[in-house]
Order: sequence, then C-alpha cells, then structure tokens
Amino acid sequence: MKKMNKLLIVGTVAFDAIETPFGKTDKILGGAGTYIGLSASFFNVQSAIVSVVGDDFPQEYLDLLTSRNIDISGLEVVKGGKTFFWSGRYHNDLNSRDTLDTQLNVLADFQPKVPQDYKNADIVMLGNLHPLVQSSVLDQMTTQPKLVVLDTMNFWMDCALPELLDVIKRVDVITINDEEARQLSGEYSLVKAAAKIQTMGPKYVVIKKGEHGALLFHNKEVFFAPALPLEEVFDPTGAGDTFAGGFAGYITQSENVSFENMKNAIIQGSNLASFCVEKFGTERMIDLDKSEVLSRLKQFKSLTQFDIEL
Amino acid sequence: MKKMNKLLIVGTVAFDAIETPFGKTDKILGGAGTYIGLSASFFNVQSAIVSVVGDDFPQEYLDLLTSRNIDISGLEVVKGGKTFFWSGRYHNDLNSRDTLDTQLNVLADFQPKVPQDYKNADIVMLGNLHPLVQSSVLDQMTTQPKLVVLDTMNFWMDCALPELLDVIKRVDVITINDEEARQLSGEYSLVKAAAKIQTMGPKYVVIKKGEHGALLFHNKEVFFAPALPLEEVFDPTGAGDTFAGGFAGYITQSENVSFENMKNAIIQGSNLASFCVEKFGTERMIDLDKSEVLSRLKQFKSLTQFDIEL
Repeated sequence: MKKMNKLLIVGTVAFDAIETPFGKTDKILGGAGTYIGLSASFFNVQSAIVSVVGDDFPQEYLDLLTSRNIDISGLEVVKGGKTFFWSGRYHNDLNSRDTLDTQLNVLADFQPKVPQDYKNADIVMLGNLHPLVQSSVLDQMTTQPKLVVLDTMNFWMDCALPELLDVIKRVDVITINDEEARQLSGEYSLVKAAAKIQTMGPKYVVIKKGEHGALLFHNKEVFFAPALPLEEVFDPTGAGDTFAGGFAGYITQSENVSFENMKNAIIQGSNLASFCVEKFGTERMIDLDKSEVLSRLKQFKSLTQFDIEL
Repeated sequence: MKKMNKLLIVGTVAFDAIETPFGKTDKILGGAGTYIGLSASFFNVQSAIVSVVGDDFPQEYLDLLTSRNIDISGLEVVKGGKTFFWSGRYHNDLNSRDTLDTQLNVLADFQPKVPQDYKNADIVMLGNLHPLVQSSVLDQMTTQPKLVVLDTMNFWMDCALPELLDVIKRVDVITINDEEARQLSGEYSLVKAAAKIQTMGPKYVVIKKGEHGALLFHNKEVFFAPALPLEEVFDPTGAGDTFAGGFAGYITQSENVSFENMKNAIIQGSNLASFCVEKFGTERMIDLDKSEVLSRLKQFKSLTQFDIEL
C-alpha cells in the first residue's frame, strides 16, 4: 500500500467558551490547530500538530486527536501550565463577535518543536499564531515542502506586522478574510488586494468571506466557492480553520498543487466548514462521517454547476 | 426563419442623477424598464416596454430603445408631463446609498396599457413599480404567459403590502435582495426566507446579494451564481434590473422554464450585470457588444466550475 503523504499543522490547541444567540458553553475544546487537524483527518493523510497546552488539558481531548490519526508528539504539555483560553460572544447576525477574554497562558513562551518525522512533511499548514512561531516551524524543515499554506488574522497586522511580512514572504498560499485582505494590502477592491498580496510572496491568495464564500486568486485567474446556504448557522467558531484544514488535507492527499486542483481543495474546505457551523465548537466535526461529507459535496455540485453552451 | 419569442417588460423609464465616490452625473437615462430592456436585448427576443414618460423625455432616448428592437408602442408620452426623476448618492463602499430626490411626476397617475401584440407575450417581466400597476398588466394578458417574473423592493413592502402580496400570488418567479427577502418573510435565514416566500405564490425565489452574488431557490433545490470579482465597481445603479433583464431575456430566447435552465439564466443575468456597474448609468450597456458578453461568460465558467470526482 502506498505510503500516505504528510501534513504538518501548527496552530493553537485551546479551550474556548462561546456565546451565541442560541446558547452558551463552558470551556470546550477549541483552537486553530484542533479544527485544522480534525478537518484534515477526513482525507487519507498522516498529520501532526505542533502546539502547546497546559497540564489542565484533558487526556480525553488528546485521545480524540490521536484517534483521528493525528501525531501529537509535537504537542508539548507544560507541567503546571495552563492551556490557552479564549472566550467570545457572537452578535445576533453571527457575522461579528466580541472577545470577552483571552488568556495566553502557556502560549506566551511557546517554542514550537517539529517532530523529526515531520521535518520533511509534504505540506505545511501554518495556522493562526504569532508569525515568529510560524517562521520557526519553517526554519526547522529539512526539505522544502511542496506547499506552505499560512492563515493569519488582523491581530498580527496590528501587533507584529514586520514579523508577519517576513513569514508571508516564505509561503505559497495565504488564507485571510476580506477585511484582513483590505488591511494588509491597503486596497478596498478584493481583486486589487489579492494582486498586491501576491507581490508580498504568496502566489495564491485565498480570501474568506464567511457566509459569502471564498475566492482563490492566482495571477489573473480567480475561482469562487460559495458557502452552502444553511437553514441555521449555530456557531461560526472554527469555520475558517476547518476550511483551511480541508484545503490543506485535500491537497496533501491528492499530491497536486496546481491551480485547477486548488479549486477542488477550496470546495472541499467549504464543504467541511459547512458542517462545522451546525453545532457548538468541534461537536459536529467529531460526529461527522465520510458519507455525509460526500453527500454534501454533491450538493455543492448542484449548487454551482451549470451548463451553458458557449 | 423561426419567429422570436415575445418578452413583455413593465418598469420605469426615467431620469437619474447619480453621485458615486468617482463622480456625479446630471440627469441621465435610467429606470428599471430601461435597464431590463437593454439587458434583454442581448438575446434573440422581441420585446416591448410598458411605461410612461413626460414630453421632456428626449427623442434620442426613445430612438435608442427602438434601435435595440424594443417595441415602445406601450410607452406613453404624456403631453406637458414631466418624466419620473430619481437622484441618489452612493456611500464609499458602494453597498448603500441615500435617495436625495424622488419626483414621481407622470408616474403618479400611470395606467399601463399593454400593446395588443404583447397581450399573448411568452414571458412577462414585471419590473419594480407599484404593485397595482404590475397587477393591471397581468389583468390585460389574453393568454397565460409561460413565466411571470416580478421584481420589487422594500418601499412597496412599507407602503403597499396588501397590493404587493396580491400580485406576488400571481407570479412564478420573484427577484428581491437579501434584506427585502428578510423583511417580506420575517425570517433571517435566507433558506427559511425563500421557503416562506414560496408559500406566498412564486415557485422560484431569486435572492440578489449584490457583490455577493445571487441565489435561486425552488422547493428543496438551490443554485448560486457569484458576482464576477471586479477591479473597480463604478456605479451600481441598475445592476439588479440588468440582472433581471438578462434572466428574463435568456429564458424568453431559450423557451425553457425548467429549474436547470433557470441556472443558466441566473448566470446570464449576473454576467450582464457585471458590465452594467463598470460605467455610469446605462453607458456600459449601450457600448457593450455580444462578443464581450460571450467572453465574460467564459470567465464565469472558469470562476465557478470544478471537477471533483465523486
């Protein structure tokens, strides 16, 4: 049997407490690395998460990751340390949220250590974290990955822009949301923003528009994937990370980093994200099975495919 | 040679004065009927506009419509009357606007008269106007059209809701924007809104989301067409009407009112609307040629079509 390709994931593994118009949670499993790992696990890949937690982090969460075939040898557990905690409240339209609390805890001094087995990973997915952490992971690679994907957010543009620009130079694909693309580029038009960001390093720019879908730009080409129209969005937390994890997982499985295949990867990411928002936190990603994923992919086809004779 | 199918259009023919962040115009040609007619003229159809203007309306504008093979025998010219005038200013993001002035003028007492030749039109496109005017046009039809499409706006929901609900009962397709769909249905989720609106009469619900594309709902099925990502949107005036005109024009030409063909019609409408916003008012629709339309349709294909093996 052919050996599976390797995906290296960096990102927070954390506790979240979430309030939406539909309810609220206590501390539950969260973090970009968690969502990316769970999402990528729907593909035939070997993956590893590089991250850090405190010893307050429950064994059952670690077991969950392991059960998804995720290598956690690069997930440091700091004795006596407390796990990163984020708490937020969504507004009624679920399109915006207020951060109620952020406790960096063990993340404050995090020095990522890439497991030996993953220093030659095929694909690297740099989830949202301090750009110096993202850079440090790339520094540890012994072979050049086929594709490096970076996700980031406005927080780092405000607080660590030079470091962010340094790591952006080194990646192939960047995924950010529309407002962040505007902030990073200084351009209002997303077409112009994507063109400008391509001059900063990434040859591929993915702009996430939440319920309005996602755009993939490369040179003069552009592809668009809608979000699946849902009766109810329950909790948007982790949707962007789930999208990125699906993108990276599919690319890793298919070993094809062409623009045409990235179109498929964007659809796969959108498809998985459409499940993520149906329940609180990671709940839906945990009870999801592959037949549901396939069935909804068919919905994506009928949602977007048409047949005009040209 | 086969006789062309007939499209009957009702909608304002008017003067607009527009301000955008890029400039402002004096009184120029505008109106829902005008945009719908120009857009539909890109298809092989016979069309007629039922509307009203004053004798201040320039002959050159009438000639323009006629040159597009649009029958204007149902376009009443009121002696001594003044043409409907609208003036608006767009905000910086072009997603919202303030109405600066509305002068109903001859529109206040408008009694639509459907030309004899169009009382058996194949398709009827009821552009945004008082719902009683829209109803009166349907009353004058001598044969049941294959499809009746209605466009409306929040203004009529506020001021003439019973009359609007009456005419909505009689149409097959309704096109409205996302906020209007929410207002009409009382549902925030667009999926739920579309389901509720289908119980009011129209079996097909098109929800226009501006730069975020358009959704077509029918029973449990849904189709999505993105807006083409543009470097610059110059003036959004008339984009929704151009979309509706492209939709109705394509359906009329193709004589096929199936859901599958409506997908194509939605793409054709989005394609034409993408040109409309590139210049002030109707300017771009007037200098547009069919080869440009075809070329951009190909862009829509590469923007949306993917090939995941399922």
